[in-house]
Amino acid sequence: MTEWLADGDLLSVPGWRGAAVRTGVKPSGGLDLALVVADEPRVAAGVFTRNALPAAPVGVCRRTLAQDARVRAIVINSGNANAMTGERGERDAVAMQARTVERVGGPALVLSTGIIGVPLPVERVLAGIDAAAGALAPRCAELADAILTTDTTRKTAALRTADGVTIGGFAKGSGMIHPNMATMLSVVALDVAVEPRALEHLLRQAVERSFHEISVDGDTSTNDAVLLVAGSGDDVIDADSERLPGLTDDVTAVMQRLARAIIDDGEGRTRTLELHVLGARDHDAASRVAEAIVRSALVKTALAGGDPNWGRILAAAANAGVPLEAERVSLAIAGVRVFFGGLPTDYDVAAVSERFGRDEVRVDLDLGAGAASVRRFTTDLSVEYVRINSEYST
Amino acid sequence: MTEWLADGDLLSVPGWRGAAVRTGVKPSGGLDLALVVADEPRVAAGVFTRNALPAAPVGVCRRTLAQDARVRAIVINSGNANAMTGERGERDAVAMQARTVERVGGPALVLSTGIIGVPLPVERVLAGIDAAAGALAPRCAELADAILTTDTTRKTAALRTADGVTIGGFAKGSGMIHPNMATMLSVVALDVAVEPRALEHLLRQAVERSFHEISVDGDTSTNDAVLLVAGSGDDVIDADSERLPGLTDDVTAVMQRLARAIIDDGEGRTRTLELHVLGARDHDAASRVAEAIVRSALVKTALAGGDPNWGRILAAAANAGVPLEAERVSLAIAGVRVFFGGLPTDYDVAAVSERFGRDEVRVDLDLGAGAASVRRFTTDLSVEYVRINSEYST
Repeated sequence: MTEWLADGDLLSVPGWRGAAVRTGVKPSGGLDLALVVADEPRVAAGVFTRNALPAAPVGVCRRTLAQDARVRAIVINSGNANAMTGERGERDAVAMQARTVERVGGPALVLSTGIIGVPLPVERVLAGIDAAAGALAPRCAELADAILTTDTTRKTAALRTADGVTIGGFAKGSGMIHPNMATMLSVVALDVAVEPRALEHLLRQAVERSFHEISVDGDTSTNDAVLLVAGSGDDVIDADSERLPGLTDDVTAVMQRLARAIIDDGEGRTRTLELHVLGARDHDAASRVAEAIVRSALVKTALAGGDPNWGRILAAAANAGVPLEAERVSLAIAGVRVFFGGLPTDYDVAAVSERFGRDEVRVDLDLGAGAASVRRFTTDLSVEYVRINSEYST
Repeated sequence: MTEWLADGDLLSVPGWRGAAVRTGVKPSGGLDLALVVADEPRVAAGVFTRNALPAAPVGVCRRTLAQDARVRAIVINSGNANAMTGERGERDAVAMQARTVERVGGPALVLSTGIIGVPLPVERVLAGIDAAAGALAPRCAELADAILTTDTTRKTAALRTADGVTIGGFAKGSGMIHPNMATMLSVVALDVAVEPRALEHLLRQAVERSFHEISVDGDTSTNDAVLLVAGSGDDVIDADSERLPGLTDDVTAVMQRLARAIIDDGEGRTRTLELHVLGARDHDAASRVAEAIVRSALVKTALAGGDPNWGRILAAAANAGVPLEAERVSLAIAGVRVFFGGLPTDYDVAAVSERFGRDEVRVDLDLGAGAASVRRFTTDLSVEYVRINSEYST
């Protein structure tokens, strides 16, 4: 029996210690640097933003993992993304990595989140690394708070599998969330050894079914990263292991819980849309249609208003550049079919309105063109979203 | 000297009459049907939505123009888009066309705008056509009001060219505005004869530099259409005519004024962004980068807040799937270069903030990768935009 661990996080996984400190980079003066350290170097894999102008720390992580595929320490600062900062940004990220290795051993990875285009106050961050290295502990309840920016909730999850493996992690993110990553960071660890290529594969599968299913505002960021760190030991799971599929499902479960926490904390969220696009010709067509819907400002404002203006959903779908045949398309809102055979059904308007006004609304769009499907979660576009993002200042 | 005609519209063009009536389809009880009729059939061309589920009237227009490329009457109803309405919608659009031909002669084109997915109250609309046919007049100040939906202003423009040609038209649109058309309708006429293929070419060029440059919310609609109707006479402008380029510029000028009126009336607009993407490898790359920026909720909320958070502009550009080299990219806000050579410049923050808070903000993004460029206008994403679109009800 898989068991969720109450208040579990990355430090629930044996062998890890962590600390969270204040460096003064965040204007609020809150916790803004987290450091986690394993008892020895462990096999690791990462998935990073596809943004064409990735932040300096993303480059540092990619190069480090490409060299070694192992990690012992991960340092994360919030309040400044060290993005669009040129060569100085590169030097600052490398300096963070070097200081971490110097204090707690390596290999070390570096992640940053916060404002873009402002040089990192690197001396403060380096002093923070020193302080965190001196404060490492097997438990640190506030660890996941130190990586938050516009988030309003701490995002952690951990479980123990039937055969005794612990999987735990934390995440941050609430705006700029979209498939292919967003201002979204997550670190998940487990206490079973996995061969590097199998871990890489496992991570990609788990991310596809968790973080890649969520969208807040359609923007992806310069800093997104998900890191997965395996355990150590002689019993190494490889690509042929019978345990790999089950382990993938368990890691996926942890990542889904973290992804769901990000959506629930989506900037200005008042409702969540769970969209299933079915019957697409192929995966690409399903993804494009789903993307067009979850990016549509008109769909997202209709959701904010609790208004089942489903014509906007079909209009957005038809905007994806994917051919559609109206006669084969079917749309259901909260289980009620509203469009079928090319025209609106004679549905119960009051019932659909009531269901569309609930906290979570499921929409099923069947394109009638094949067997491919995708799922996406998105938030509504509320007055509060605009307030948050027009006031989050440089 | 080209001369703009004060309060000019389509009826400024000799040979046209028009009428606007109330059919009761609009819940407000306002004017909701416009009819314009030329003294004889004239050569016409149209550009229509690329939405995969076009509304019934779009199909009627396409088929009619494909058969004949001439038009005498155009009827437009507002309040109901006759979209996602199946075979009944087809029959209703054809009935509107037939009634128009019966009353005032043909060929006739049909356009609709308003709510999607609700059957057209066709009897009311047909009665409206009867009423409008009986009320045709050489001037009708309220003509362009009858095609508005969430618009707050009438959109008309007319000019007289140096060699005495009159070009006039009207438009509607304020939400769902995006390149490749949107809930945007426009009809423009001129009083010089143009050969059908030359008119088609002229229209495409003019639309590319006017309506295709504007974006309000990134959604395109099921009903978008721009119609251009030539004049009559023996002096026919063809593809080889020396007058064609000048005429194209003049039609473009009218369409730019109408497009600009749509942006100025953009739903919830408080500021306008004029974006120039320069130095792209090719037109496609320039368009994709521009589109990623004008669709970005984070860029548009920063604009609403008057906050020159230019990192969001670069992050959005880098999200377009177009490779970028940070060292070659240059960004200027209102003429002040803020990013160059891979990092922020030492710009005057107060000056940039002041300029970003003005009514119109120009942004120049040079990708440093080639010679292609595009221009786009977009509105900010304001609290008011969300209010309008979460309350515009089914």
